[in-house]
Amino acid sequence: MTVRVGVIGTGWIGGEHIRRITDRVGGAEVVAVTDIDADRAARAVAGTGARVLATGEEVIAAEDVDAVVVTSWGPAHAESVLAAVAAGKPVFCEKPLATSAEDAQRILDAEARHGARLVQVGFMRRYDTGYRQMKEVVSAGGIGTPLMAHCVHRNPTVPESYHSEMASQDTAVHEIDVLRWLLDDEISSVQVLTPRPTGKRFEHLRDPQMLLFEMVGGARVDLEVFVNCQYGYEIGCEVVGEEGTVRLPEVPGAVVRSAARTSTPVLQDWVQRFAGAFDAEFQSWADEVAAGTPTTGPNAWDGYAAAVVTDAAVRALHSGGVVETGIKERPAFYA
Amino acid sequence: MTVRVGVIGTGWIGGEHIRRITDRVGGAEVVAVTDIDADRAARAVAGTGARVLATGEEVIAAEDVDAVVVTSWGPAHAESVLAAVAAGKPVFCEKPLATSAEDAQRILDAEARHGARLVQVGFMRRYDTGYRQMKEVVSAGGIGTPLMAHCVHRNPTVPESYHSEMASQDTAVHEIDVLRWLLDDEISSVQVLTPRPTGKRFEHLRDPQMLLFEMVGGARVDLEVFVNCQYGYEIGCEVVGEEGTVRLPEVPGAVVRSAARTSTPVLQDWVQRFAGAFDAEFQSWADEVAAGTPTTGPNAWDGYAAAVVTDAAVRALHSGGVVETGIKERPAFYA
Amino acid sequence: MTVRVGVIGTGWIGGEHIRRITDRVGGAEVVAVTDIDADRAARAVAGTGARVLATGEEVIAAEDVDAVVVTSWGPAHAESVLAAVAAGKPVFCEKPLATSAEDAQRILDAEARHGARLVQVGFMRRYDTGYRQMKEVVSAGGIGTPLMAHCVHRNPTVPESYHSEMASQDTAVHEIDVLRWLLDDEISSVQVLTPRPTGKRFEHLRDPQMLLFEMVGGARVDLEVFVNCQYGYEIGCEVVGEEGTVRLPEVPGAVVRSAARTSTPVLQDWVQRFAGAFDAEFQSWADEVAAGTPTTGPNAWDGYAAAVVTDAAVRALHSGGVVETGIKERPAFYA
Amino acid sequence: MTVRVGVIGTGWIGGEHIRRITDRVGGAEVVAVTDIDADRAARAVAGTGARVLATGEEVIAAEDVDAVVVTSWGPAHAESVLAAVAAGKPVFCEKPLATSAEDAQRILDAEARHGARLVQVGFMRRYDTGYRQMKEVVSAGGIGTPLMAHCVHRNPTVPESYHSEMASQDTAVHEIDVLRWLLDDEISSVQVLTPRPTGKRFEHLRDPQMLLFEMVGGARVDLEVFVNCQYGYEIGCEVVGEEGTVRLPEVPGAVVRSAARTSTPVLQDWVQRFAGAFDAEFQSWADEVAAGTPTTGPNAWDGYAAAVVTDAAVRALHSGGVVETGIKERPAFYA
Repeated sequence: MTVRVGVIGTGWIGGEHIRRITDRVGGAEVVAVTDIDADRAARAVAGTGARVLATGEEVIAAEDVDAVVVTSWGPAHAESVLAAVAAGKPVFCEKPLATSAEDAQRILDAEARHGARLVQVGFMRRYDTGYRQMKEVVSAGGIGTPLMAHCVHRNPTVPESYHSEMASQDTAVHEIDVLRWLLDDEISSVQVLTPRPTGKRFEHLRDPQMLLFEMVGGARVDLEVFVNCQYGYEIGCEVVGEEGTVRLPEVPGAVVRSAARTSTPVLQDWVQRFAGAFDAEFQSWADEVAAGTPTTGPNAWDGYAAAVVTDAAVRALHSGGVVETGIKERPAFYA
Repeated sequence: MTVRVGVIGTGWIGGEHIRRITDRVGGAEVVAVTDIDADRAARAVAGTGARVLATGEEVIAAEDVDAVVVTSWGPAHAESVLAAVAAGKPVFCEKPLATSAEDAQRILDAEARHGARLVQVGFMRRYDTGYRQMKEVVSAGGIGTPLMAHCVHRNPTVPESYHSEMASQDTAVHEIDVLRWLLDDEISSVQVLTPRPTGKRFEHLRDPQMLLFEMVGGARVDLEVFVNCQYGYEIGCEVVGEEGTVRLPEVPGAVVRSAARTSTPVLQDWVQRFAGAFDAEFQSWADEVAAGTPTTGPNAWDGYAAAVVTDAAVRALHSGGVVETGIKERPAFYA
Repeated sequence: MTVRVGVIGTGWIGGEHIRRITDRVGGAEVVAVTDIDADRAARAVAGTGARVLATGEEVIAAEDVDAVVVTSWGPAHAESVLAAVAAGKPVFCEKPLATSAEDAQRILDAEARHGARLVQVGFMRRYDTGYRQMKEVVSAGGIGTPLMAHCVHRNPTVPESYHSEMASQDTAVHEIDVLRWLLDDEISSVQVLTPRPTGKRFEHLRDPQMLLFEMVGGARVDLEVFVNCQYGYEIGCEVVGEEGTVRLPEVPGAVVRSAARTSTPVLQDWVQRFAGAFDAEFQSWADEVAAGTPTTGPNAWDGYAAAVVTDAAVRALHSGGVVETGIKERPAFYA
Repeated sequence: MTVRVGVIGTGWIGGEHIRRITDRVGGAEVVAVTDIDADRAARAVAGTGARVLATGEEVIAAEDVDAVVVTSWGPAHAESVLAAVAAGKPVFCEKPLATSAEDAQRILDAEARHGARLVQVGFMRRYDTGYRQMKEVVSAGGIGTPLMAHCVHRNPTVPESYHSEMASQDTAVHEIDVLRWLLDDEISSVQVLTPRPTGKRFEHLRDPQMLLFEMVGGARVDLEVFVNCQYGYEIGCEVVGEEGTVRLPEVPGAVVRSAARTSTPVLQDWVQRFAGAFDAEFQSWADEVAAGTPTTGPNAWDGYAAAVVTDAAVRALHSGGVVETGIKERPAFYA
């Protein structure tokens, strides 16, 4: 069975996902899309046979749409997801699931009413080969009980529109999800330290930032977010357990020796870094939707938790102190 | 335009490629297949909509087949390729293009008569990210003129059916192609050294072997082929130039520290190692076939050169001495 | 000129240094020693020709003692150092220089009265090849202005006598010194986080700990101290600047591939890890003492700063909050 | 007991060893030296208390000389070693032990007559930490029976006086020794391949060269010698066994990320690369001489084997073919 997908939002990331589903994912095709810019929507599906509809409601309601992908801008995500859940259709929502914990809660409530999980959130790192290897090692007890994690998230530069809160909302949110998954635990508190800012940024931006998380079980995480590091895009993660450590592999690159240096290239953006993860994420989603089984990827609870922790991180940035996330216990529904 | 593909031979590798074209490659679909085992053919295309035909001739002749993939057993490759060229259809042939230099020559002649290149040979390493990075460095002059290359090709174990000549024919053939490409030169002579054989092999097999190649331009290559190395599948390649060296990156894996060791996993087979290369290879082929431009991948000349060098390597294994390949100059047609 | 050295304290580290000066360091010899255990002192110099004296005072006063090494237990260091300064003799003091900031201040005052620097403190990491390479990169502007540093200090296990405060006093003190040196700045505040403790420790010990330092110039440092990590002894350090990063190299070890893993050994103790640094440290000290120039190694101010920051770290461990070190400005005398 | 050493030859390497024995080695001192240039000899021992004698004979005969170090120019080595053996004094001879197999044989005969081993040859690599780790892994059966080894020996540039035969005599000789030791076997034949020469050399020099060795037990070794590789000094060695491989670690260096590259420095000469090995070599020799036990380092047989193989390699370079070394079986005296 081929999963027929409707896509809401055909901006850059929407376009990427349309091409991915069309070209790289087996057992799925895009049949309908919508965008506030109908021309852009038409361009995004040129040659695919998919049709352009006027609204997200129409996409969700279309009889030939089996499942929905939400790639509109963040503040619109929650409404589309709620509508899809109301229609009983599986929905893949790019992060964030919601821009407030309240909206995320409404989605949890909707799924509970529906009685089955329908939502997957686009935290693609869980599909990255390196993170999956880390997860296997941790889950198999290869390092004992996790006690700490050290992470870095670096980006060469950001545009002027990037503001200090986005370090948590847009950037750290990926680690917030992947650490919850790696450590199989919730984040109970956040603190944000602000090192001396780099001179190589727009004046309004606080960069770098150091985020400190405490997990409910007591593990501690430090995360450097540095979005104007100049030299490249780099993701680092090490989990430290009672008996050993496991670290994300470095990105491979041809090793050159010349002029008294041994060197390898550094990637320059997340598109290169996580291309394989995006493919694997959508393939897994399509396979599970086709099979009619609940998706095993990040779910609405994960989206909710990310929203709660992100909110706390923003408050922590402003206050300078430790902020409790107040995260609830994970409902059995999401166990 | 979607390229409609006919597949001749649906054994293991044929099945893999059918799934790849169906699920992972954009702009291509399998519409017809054949196999000497019709049931196997039917199973290979179950759920894809492709039909099973009785013979390769029928596949090639089918009106809705735009391009042909040949994945039958090696000795049958040449006839199918010749038939496809006669029909004027682009053909992707798994290695080997032919099992003798004479058969490969017939394909060169046929393409010459046709007046345009139609054949691509399945040397997937040219699409591996690491090799491509090496090629870029070499081509950009990053290490100066290449003078040497050091290579290893290791496999954990092989079955009893694997015989000593296959070290060249099946295993080293990948390096034969990729080194010609990396060094942009032809191989002029081959020597095969036979180190003390490992005890961990079937008695009839000479393993490991050390192949020594000289290029027309004078560069020298050594290649270890060790197909019962026990510990894993590993490909190594370093090109040494007048001003520097470039080396294939190691396969990334989560780094574990425990029990007084730092360690990473080693892959166990070529399917894992080159999965991404196979995807990229077919995507590139499909794109170029769709565009109607000659494919830029390994062509019939490359298949011919591989056959000539492989033949020489087998003779060198038997004789113990240096064997000239007698390779001709590359025709302008393949420049 | 050979520097004639008197050693006060011939326990384990004193014995090590006697052998080092005797066997590995050019231009220096041990001529007199003392210890509270005279037999131990005699054993420590057996075969060296050095004589055993009754007290540290006698060692310092001996006419043929050009310079003094203090390797008694920590609480006795300050008095010996003060006596050596009073006698106008160069003195190398193992860390700590003093066990309180007050005692360290007395040494600063004594040197000021003497009018020249005489004291070197045994922070050997500044002589480690890897750290020196890092320092050169930072000093040469290779990474731009430093903004952050990430460090780990791991040890396989510690005996029951090791208590929670020692994580700062004995263990982190090495990073406290080397970071001040690498970042060329003083530490203004300390915070100590206490992750979930490992089960593999004596009950009374808080392990691991995460120390957070802020430098006067605003750079931020995180330091994991984990003294029962089981798997080995490991030191990690990365400095992050405005334009790049520099990282301590990993300890080299033969790379083994077997049983589906690639692995290297991990060291098990600091003696192996810093053997070369200790040799270089003493050679440098002996050379500078022989030359009659002020030693360029860590000086009394560095010992004072370490004491002040260590005190603050202990208070931070107890309080859980941020503790200002109140470090003074570095006197011109120590510039 | 302090070993009193006489040194014959105070050129560059002789001066290095005098400083090493004086400053870095415990339990040894230089008491007498000689050189054809008496002024140079005097400068070499300035400040050490050693006296300058007129001839090597006088040095060997001196009553206060317990052991002799031969660091004159190569053609003079054998006579000094023979004289030391005749005098019954332990002798450390820089490589080569002799410049012909005949001269080396005379030393074997002399030691046999003397009835005990007195000679150590200066193959310092056996004392390099990385090679020692490799040896331990191989000896412990960690990779199974060795079948192959792959080696590289690279140098940035050489002066005009370096000629093609020196690639074997001066450069490859280090691998010839260390491979015999690692593989615990003798070399039975040699072949020298001559890749396209680099343009970055004096015209008369054949560079690079590829040496191929076969061991008596059947293992095969390939060795790249490239003495004008431009980018740095690099030694590589991998031994491949029936169950795994072991590789010399890379030289550690601070890891810098900047300008889209991750890089580490490459050393530029063998003095830096093997400084630690030289220290360990002399310390071990001094300790064993002091203990009166036969030295466990490379002995006269090893010097003989190196001469035999080097001779064969030079003939192989000239002939282009495989040259049998004709190495005898190792006498029980050297087992």
